[in-house]
Amino acid sequence: MVIKLKIKNKLIFAADLDNLDEVNNILNQISNLINTVKIGYPLVLSEGIECISKFKNLGYNVIADFKVADIPATNKKICKITFEKGADAIIVHGFVGKDSVKACKDIAKKMNKELFLVVDMSHPGSRQFLEKNSKEIAKIGLELGIKNYVLPSTKPKIGLEIRKILGDEAFVISPGIGVQGGEIKKTLKFADAIIVGRSIYQSKDPMTTTKKLINHINLAIS
Amino acid sequence: MVIKLKIKNKLIFAADLDNLDEVNNILNQISNLINTVKIGYPLVLSEGIECISKFKNLGYNVIADFKVADIPATNKKICKITFEKGADAIIVHGFVGKDSVKACKDIAKKMNKELFLVVDMSHPGSRQFLEKNSKEIAKIGLELGIKNYVLPSTKPKIGLEIRKILGDEAFVISPGIGVQGGEIKKTLKFADAIIVGRSIYQSKDPMTTTKKLINHINLAIS
Repeated sequence: MVIKLKIKNKLIFAADLDNLDEVNNILNQISNLINTVKIGYPLVLSEGIECISKFKNLGYNVIADFKVADIPATNKKICKITFEKGADAIIVHGFVGKDSVKACKDIAKKMNKELFLVVDMSHPGSRQFLEKNSKEIAKIGLELGIKNYVLPSTKPKIGLEIRKILGDEAFVISPGIGVQGGEIKKTLKFADAIIVGRSIYQSKDPMTTTKKLINHINLAIS
Repeated sequence: MVIKLKIKNKLIFAADLDNLDEVNNILNQISNLINTVKIGYPLVLSEGIECISKFKNLGYNVIADFKVADIPATNKKICKITFEKGADAIIVHGFVGKDSVKACKDIAKKMNKELFLVVDMSHPGSRQFLEKNSKEIAKIGLELGIKNYVLPSTKPKIGLEIRKILGDEAFVISPGIGVQGGEIKKTLKFADAIIVGRSIYQSKDPMTTTKKLINHINLAIS
């Protein structure tokens, strides 16, 4: 049975840096405020995939934001290795088609890990192809029994529309808050947790910034 | 100025394994037949990104098949690190939109490296979204002045159509030969080189298999 990640304060820290010392420096300051870290390829390619187990050893949930987007056989290998290295969850693209997503879903289920399906993205270029197909991608997720999704905070209207398709049972995380322009209140109308990177790690005072973010989150859902 | 990779015998070895010893064992047997290796995340996540420099030190061209598919800022970071680690080229998805591709193109140009744009893929699921948008993705490549593309050998008709859009100046590599069902002769009508993995590394005699593949390639273009 797949167990949903318990995300403290509805806030995921996006460690979109390529230097482990910098990430650890930030984490030291916000460790009592968050319990879930999203890491991506910049960090893993620079510092090695062992950073996953380092974060796990510090007690964090780790979401590997690898935006997996290959043929089914390769997708399966990528997910399997990432889970073996300790990740609790992996982020997977839907645009490559149902068979590629299913390969990830099957291995996640087998290894009792989580999968997040990217339905749409936050950057301007996502309007070209992803946004137009986002409803169809969401349906693939539903057909495969996927519970976890990624929706962009920069598109609150689309977020609400897709949320209706996904239903109340779905668990949605959302990037794009802050630097990219997404707003917390609008985002939490369709998302269950937000992902914040630059606003925290580029802040002169990450702890205070994170506390403020959590205050905004609590106000938004109160 | 970007220099096109010189691919020996029009054949790229896809090292889609997750064990470096196995890859080296195959390469030892075919080292005088090929000069270009395509590596992907299964190998890099298992063995570390240092495998790129190991292959470079053995004299191979290295194409990092990372199917980069993130927001522009993250795409740039992924490409930069991959090039710094020694890769000659990186494979990038087009469906994430023009800005994401441009971020990769800009850093590739700056570092005098190569970029391959995925226009369509070889697996059945690619028909759901990628195939329908392949002509638009090809146009993004042309607009950005990209010279190198990936087209699937499993769709020879589409390959020819896209090749017409890309023009004679484009350099096209094609996976999907062999296990996935692509045929060499049909593929080389639209592609400049083929990518073969499983047919070689699952063979009991990789050297003989590779020689046969090269014979087929030479027959197809004669």
